[in-house]
Amino acid sequence: MARAIRPIPELYEAARAGERRALGRLLTKVERGGDEADRISELAHPDAGRAHIVGITGAPGAGKSTLVSRLVSDLVTGGKRPAVLAVDPSSPLTGGAILGDRIRIDEGNDPGEAPSSFIRSMATRGHSGGLALAVPLAVRLFDAVGYDPVIIETVGVGQVEVDVVGAADTAVVVMTPGMGDAVQANKAGLLEVADVFVVNKADRPGALDVRRDLDLMLDLSHMTGQESDTGYRPPIVMASALNGDGNDEVWAAVDAHLAHLDETGSRQARRQHRIRTEVRARLEQAMARAADDAMNAPDGATWLGQAERAEIAPTQATQHLLHVLLQPTKEVPS
Amino acid sequence: MARAIRPIPELYEAARAGERRALGRLLTKVERGGDEADRISELAHPDAGRAHIVGITGAPGAGKSTLVSRLVSDLVTGGKRPAVLAVDPSSPLTGGAILGDRIRIDEGNDPGEAPSSFIRSMATRGHSGGLALAVPLAVRLFDAVGYDPVIIETVGVGQVEVDVVGAADTAVVVMTPGMGDAVQANKAGLLEVADVFVVNKADRPGALDVRRDLDLMLDLSHMTGQESDTGYRPPIVMASALNGDGNDEVWAAVDAHLAHLDETGSRQARRQHRIRTEVRARLEQAMARAADDAMNAPDGATWLGQAERAEIAPTQATQHLLHVLLQPTKEVPS
Repeated sequence: MARAIRPIPELYEAARAGERRALGRLLTKVERGGDEADRISELAHPDAGRAHIVGITGAPGAGKSTLVSRLVSDLVTGGKRPAVLAVDPSSPLTGGAILGDRIRIDEGNDPGEAPSSFIRSMATRGHSGGLALAVPLAVRLFDAVGYDPVIIETVGVGQVEVDVVGAADTAVVVMTPGMGDAVQANKAGLLEVADVFVVNKADRPGALDVRRDLDLMLDLSHMTGQESDTGYRPPIVMASALNGDGNDEVWAAVDAHLAHLDETGSRQARRQHRIRTEVRARLEQAMARAADDAMNAPDGATWLGQAERAEIAPTQATQHLLHVLLQPTKEVPS
Repeated sequence: MARAIRPIPELYEAARAGERRALGRLLTKVERGGDEADRISELAHPDAGRAHIVGITGAPGAGKSTLVSRLVSDLVTGGKRPAVLAVDPSSPLTGGAILGDRIRIDEGNDPGEAPSSFIRSMATRGHSGGLALAVPLAVRLFDAVGYDPVIIETVGVGQVEVDVVGAADTAVVVMTPGMGDAVQANKAGLLEVADVFVVNKADRPGALDVRRDLDLMLDLSHMTGQESDTGYRPPIVMASALNGDGNDEVWAAVDAHLAHLDETGSRQARRQHRIRTEVRARLEQAMARAADDAMNAPDGATWLGQAERAEIAPTQATQHLLHVLLQPTKEVPS
């Protein structure tokens, strides 16, 4: 018997009712992008807005996935329904293989039963624009179908990951002795987005040095931290995810940060920031497509050829293209 | 006596005549961006196109700056006039301090004499868009005033750096035993852009393992390498930059790659790709400004507010904004 293709609203209602497979299919469509993803976004938008969105980042090898799997099982034990989105902006050549091992975390869930946790990996087929749209939409979908918290875990620590994690309600930065030290984290822009620091593998030599370096950098930089203007200082939690030490303290710090956001009204501000960022990313994607079309059209190819032969400057080729792309009133933005 | 402010064309002619200070001033304007940078681009464009553009990247600590300073002094000895652009897309909080030590490389040049080498650091004030415009323009300027080769050295290994280095004529990826191994390089997309691999600190344990891993990954992936369709396989050079071992071989491999590009006609293709990428970046920047203006205008603020209150979906807010931004014919790109 051929399996019926269910329309998106039906899949969405099934996912809301707890059907794991329906949610999986929707997430695949979200990852793919395009019209179906937009339709899912429109369905989920009114139902979303309740979940605590937690971003977790840190250098590869910092033990993030171990920490996340421990947190997930503690949250389930505590009666929560956590979802995890593991984001890997690596190249299409390797994405699949590297992500393969992450499925193990929620293998405890039976495909048929109402899931108490859900983990999903998301690669981005090599272009960061896809990630900028797919991640907020996947988070919205998890939120809308009843998962809380929604944890976004990034594999790397590039600018894309910093942006993703910085857009969460609570951004957790995981560090370890010896690698991914405080100076590197600072360079990557992580100190500016962190709401909670975790020093993982805290039983290893050098863990207290990492803590001291972080403390010093927090002391020196009053600009650090998204909530610094409300007097919030990101706590530093010592943990050893592998043997479970400190995992309770990590989540307690995350919860305390959420309470702080609610008290100061910052949670609403972060939500507004996320919507704005998403609309911005959507605009950029549509405008980038229009730009590509204009560059590939006969006129565009002519101007590019002239620039390549140094007959006109790249700035002039750009002006010609803007003239055919933008509304006249928008053409020379101040 | 007040120092006269020299107009850009005068600075440009002075830089072409070998005046170090004039070139420094132009590079500062390039870094700042805007109209003056555009003017410099237009002046330099017809004079550029001769230099061999070499990108060098690798994880922090791989010994890139040591390697580059050795290469520069060998090139000068060999009668060349190399320029180095050290690109650091780190946050404005730390950029200056981290780049401070890089000036030492060319301290041998007297400010008054015609320079045989020139090194310049470029931070990006936290936004990658600035880098996408400033780097090609700085390279063009070095090229136009007579430097050859122009070496672009990146501090990190994120997507921005991969793009910068991948746009060079020859992309060199530096690895070391123990850190920044082949799997990490693969994840970062470095294997796909590399034309020459250097295993630095080759006297350390594990160097042969790095070489073997790289060889294996090159064997497995026939898609790897920008020149793979011309039968080119990126060589792996073992080096120890600190004591000078292998530095000659590194440059020999870089030269051999350039010869390959010239033989196959790929050099012209890379130049076209660079021009196209630059125009694309300029379009994106202008369109992003127009998008910001539209979002901040009264209508835009209304639509964003409606999306934040879940009265309309982010997709609908985006459609409204595109309608005021793009020419009607461009509004629904295929």
